[in-house]
Amino acid sequence: MTVKQLSLPELADACGRSGVGSVGLWREPVRAYGVEAAARLVRDAGLTVSTLCRGGFLTAGDPVERAEALGDNHAAVEEAAALGAEVLVLVSGGLPAGSKDLRGARERVADALSVLGPYAERHGVRLAIEPLHPMYASDRCVVSTLAQALDLAERFPAHQVGVAVDTYHVWWDDRAPAEIARAGAAGRIHTFQLADWTTPLPAGVLDGRGQIGDGSIDMREWKGYVEAAGYHGPMEVELFNEGLWARDGREVLAETTERFLRHVVR
Amino acid sequence: MTVKQLSLPELADACGRSGVGSVGLWREPVRAYGVEAAARLVRDAGLTVSTLCRGGFLTAGDPVERAEALGDNHAAVEEAAALGAEVLVLVSGGLPAGSKDLRGARERVADALSVLGPYAERHGVRLAIEPLHPMYASDRCVVSTLAQALDLAERFPAHQVGVAVDTYHVWWDDRAPAEIARAGAAGRIHTFQLADWTTPLPAGVLDGRGQIGDGSIDMREWKGYVEAAGYHGPMEVELFNEGLWARDGREVLAETTERFLRHVVR
Repeated sequence: MTVKQLSLPELADACGRSGVGSVGLWREPVRAYGVEAAARLVRDAGLTVSTLCRGGFLTAGDPVERAEALGDNHAAVEEAAALGAEVLVLVSGGLPAGSKDLRGARERVADALSVLGPYAERHGVRLAIEPLHPMYASDRCVVSTLAQALDLAERFPAHQVGVAVDTYHVWWDDRAPAEIARAGAAGRIHTFQLADWTTPLPAGVLDGRGQIGDGSIDMREWKGYVEAAGYHGPMEVELFNEGLWARDGREVLAETTERFLRHVVR
Repeated sequence: MTVKQLSLPELADACGRSGVGSVGLWREPVRAYGVEAAARLVRDAGLTVSTLCRGGFLTAGDPVERAEALGDNHAAVEEAAALGAEVLVLVSGGLPAGSKDLRGARERVADALSVLGPYAERHGVRLAIEPLHPMYASDRCVVSTLAQALDLAERFPAHQVGVAVDTYHVWWDDRAPAEIARAGAAGRIHTFQLADWTTPLPAGVLDGRGQIGDGSIDMREWKGYVEAAGYHGPMEVELFNEGLWARDGREVLAETTERFLRHVVR
């Protein structure tokens, strides 16, 4: 998503040239390209697929909508398996229209996971509940903190359901370091994503994630938390940023790689 | 602030006609009108001043800036006392430019409160730390949850430092009901403010607070939490909303009163 202006073949080629060995893919471009063709493309390029983004949106109250959402998530699990992605990231969904019941919506996410978890396990895929920043609680994700995500995940085995830790969503939360330790101890950190916090936020607050190093987040600190919790898997830079999308994708990928090395690794 | 298009005399008159007996004032219009004159105006109109908004912005690292901020907060305490407002609301302030140290900024707020608390007590004013929604953590308020605000407040006597509970800032937080109970048990709920959560958020996310009843927050539920915690003081509707500001202020006040009665009281 960071360089969504690149086609999948351009992305595979650019990752190879940049020394990026693992990539998180989104469902829409994968489906547009063809799942099997995309799987072959990344395999031939020597890339692994760290995660597939994203399933979820499991909060509907209407039974027909719920059944459709589950069906779509089953498809997402199958796509992840076909790509060799071990992890499917889930964004829970917001409040149904007119509802003010956050608790009820969170319970419906749990209900769906009781079906989706075993289905994912049969396909060799783990689910990662991603808590989104509280500014998305009404319209995108009723799971707002790592604590809430873990409370949900812990109802299921760790090899079925864990969490996604994304710096953009949790950086403000003084409880997050302890929750990362809790997640790590249970083997439930299923992916670690990085984006920086920059202001002012744009209208709609979706596409303002900052390039690594441009904002308020101490990336090394958060890398330290997940590593201390035993996580040594892929680190994904996931930026939604109109400014970056307007630039040359290969240039953005090179810049992002450099920023990652400078602000996260070194 | 809900009807900032009204001058202070217009506001005092309109409150009287709407049956609003208590009003939260902001410092800027009070200072522009003259503090003593404003105090006389509201007194003559039979109004009480529920809170004065706002002091705070106590996170600067630079000693000169810190001294200036303290001086400004001393003035705010004196203004609150002159208005007969028992409570001064504090917005803590964001990260200093270039800083990524939320913890350090929160500690500097505590340092300032150790000076400001006794000063306020001598003037018969209580300080209310207002946790702001986490989307303001970098640029406006490093105190993002009621738990954090109470952790700060509890270092001081309750008659010096408590918290402001604002539905807009805490509605997403599943821990907030327990923290309200904690605050109430200690006599630290110093004011209760209402605004609804509506999306999409506007650019900059400052002026998108929804009219009561227009959004995702169950107002009766939150009123129930503060009342169960023993709070029976003023309830303040505090909306920052470009759409409301563009309309006739008396009409907005009447609408807000009607919404308050319909969605909060009845």
